[in-house]
Amino acid sequence: MSQRLVLSIDAMGGDNAPEMAIQGCELAQERFPFVEFLLFGDETKLEPLVATARLDRARHKIVHTDEFVAGDAKPAIALRAGRKSSMRLAIDAVRDGASSGVVSAGNTGALMAMAKFVLKTLPGIDRPAIASLFPTMRGESVMLDLGANVQCNADNLVQFAIMGEVFARAVLGLERPSVGLLNVGSEEMKGHEELRLAAAWLRNTNLPILFHGFVEGDDVPGGTVDVVVTDGFTGNVALKIAEGTSKLYSSFLKGAFQSSFLAKLGYVLAKSALKKVRLRTDPRRYNGAMFVGLNGIVVKSHGGTDALGFANAIGVAVDMVTHGLNDKIRKELAHLAPPPPEAAIG
Amino acid sequence: MSQRLVLSIDAMGGDNAPEMAIQGCELAQERFPFVEFLLFGDETKLEPLVATARLDRARHKIVHTDEFVAGDAKPAIALRAGRKSSMRLAIDAVRDGASSGVVSAGNTGALMAMAKFVLKTLPGIDRPAIASLFPTMRGESVMLDLGANVQCNADNLVQFAIMGEVFARAVLGLERPSVGLLNVGSEEMKGHEELRLAAAWLRNTNLPILFHGFVEGDDVPGGTVDVVVTDGFTGNVALKIAEGTSKLYSSFLKGAFQSSFLAKLGYVLAKSALKKVRLRTDPRRYNGAMFVGLNGIVVKSHGGTDALGFANAIGVAVDMVTHGLNDKIRKELAHLAPPPPEAAIG
Repeated sequence: MSQRLVLSIDAMGGDNAPEMAIQGCELAQERFPFVEFLLFGDETKLEPLVATARLDRARHKIVHTDEFVAGDAKPAIALRAGRKSSMRLAIDAVRDGASSGVVSAGNTGALMAMAKFVLKTLPGIDRPAIASLFPTMRGESVMLDLGANVQCNADNLVQFAIMGEVFARAVLGLERPSVGLLNVGSEEMKGHEELRLAAAWLRNTNLPILFHGFVEGDDVPGGTVDVVVTDGFTGNVALKIAEGTSKLYSSFLKGAFQSSFLAKLGYVLAKSALKKVRLRTDPRRYNGAMFVGLNGIVVKSHGGTDALGFANAIGVAVDMVTHGLNDKIRKELAHLAPPPPEAAIG
Repeated sequence: MSQRLVLSIDAMGGDNAPEMAIQGCELAQERFPFVEFLLFGDETKLEPLVATARLDRARHKIVHTDEFVAGDAKPAIALRAGRKSSMRLAIDAVRDGASSGVVSAGNTGALMAMAKFVLKTLPGIDRPAIASLFPTMRGESVMLDLGANVQCNADNLVQFAIMGEVFARAVLGLERPSVGLLNVGSEEMKGHEELRLAAAWLRNTNLPILFHGFVEGDDVPGGTVDVVVTDGFTGNVALKIAEGTSKLYSSFLKGAFQSSFLAKLGYVLAKSALKKVRLRTDPRRYNGAMFVGLNGIVVKSHGGTDALGFANAIGVAVDMVTHGLNDKIRKELAHLAPPPPEAAIG
């Protein structure tokens, strides 16, 4: 085979693990015939699953461990006590060059803590961020940080902007993605100081970033920019509000279609068209949050996802590796000049 | 008439003013026959509109001024230079007892600055907040602050919780509304310090508040609690993300219904049922953000709203006055004990 790509899989992470992880690997191998897996977990559980699944024998290897990180474990505890966990060994394999990236549906905080500790951040990055794609009026955009850093300073936000821009170029295939900083509208309170500092820096940066300026909440689903940059607190709330609102709308719709005989009939006729809406807003489609800014590719799948969602998360990791995301980020950061003096608050 | 209720209307505020304001008053008078209006604005413009509208002659009075606050005026400038503006005179009338509340679709920042300056905050309230109802899986909830205060300390958040709780009792008619503090999920970063302090205080308060604890973004549309308390930055982003996501979903739906002949036919059959979904998520239905914590009722209508939306904003003001919201808030605050020593961060 001319192309080989090995990924570490934390097979024990997630509500429906290890079944959904193994089935997800199977689906992913159908899509990406060049992908190989290192499956970390309890071999007594994994062996029979792998046998049932049509997982290519030549393209996977089980690495046994009977330890795993609990879904509710505190990150600091997991970091200290989980050195032989499936999650940790999967990350170690990336550091050791045995695999090009890791996918886990386990505890987010523990995964971030371990990944930071084992892989370290890229040169020029103070803190990694969590990024994800989301559906918009214009297609898809990327948002970061979605929860790794509750508080961010201007440096963090500028670094997120650079990483998000590279990501949008590499994975969304955009030539010159636009970047916006999430803020509030009213004049009186145009944002925290760190937002204004970051905006001043981005407006004057030597990097060829297409900085749009501030965007507001409705610009996010509106698709005003390709990359939405925010702190992890706001980003986490924003993502979950959007997911919850989609669910609310879909439940209103379901109620409406059941409210009369005509409506039921209408539903039957429009069913296949409506299925497309469901697919477009399916959270599984956007499963796979990327930890960006680390010396290695780390993808976090939603803990409650199924095999299809897990396969999509694997797809995200494949994309990031294939596009050499980290090399591109490294290159940008190497060229980033310090903030110009005029980047002081205007 | 046994019941009289006079409201000040800033007839010159909003994108479609003064037409939509006068038409909104007309709609509101049909719903609330006991409401009277003081209409502040340019009489040469208002006279013909009032004549065309079926506005009861005995139940409105035009107060002339040819000054108004521009939609993009800086709040501080508006406060200094806008002393004879329709917005300011409408607020002055509340202070002077000529009306029981004010409704404006004008500049939010200017309205808040003027209202704070003229009416002052209620005893025990450091900062007023912006509150609004929103649709949820369980019905309706109230969220505050939606943008008055970018940064909030624990005292502010506790005061918002008390005001929101009173509001939910008075206007939503709930006996014991539940209150949640908006936060992020992951263990590692359970929130800013002010959130933890506010939670500790609310858990131990002497007031009979049903404090649920922290909620996450998806709990907002999910309706997990009746009152969602957050800082103005997060609240503003949350509200606009939810509105934008509803729009996105509805545009996906529209596209689906036009995608095939069968889907179009299905739409025709289900049309009247689908109209209910549109009504339930219609932003006009939730128009009318309340400024709570002031010595007087102040309602801000969306700037781009139409007559129906403006009438709903008037309805919110009527509700707040009728239920004696401010007296109830005053009473609660008079009983609030200082934070117990055990409310230190655990």
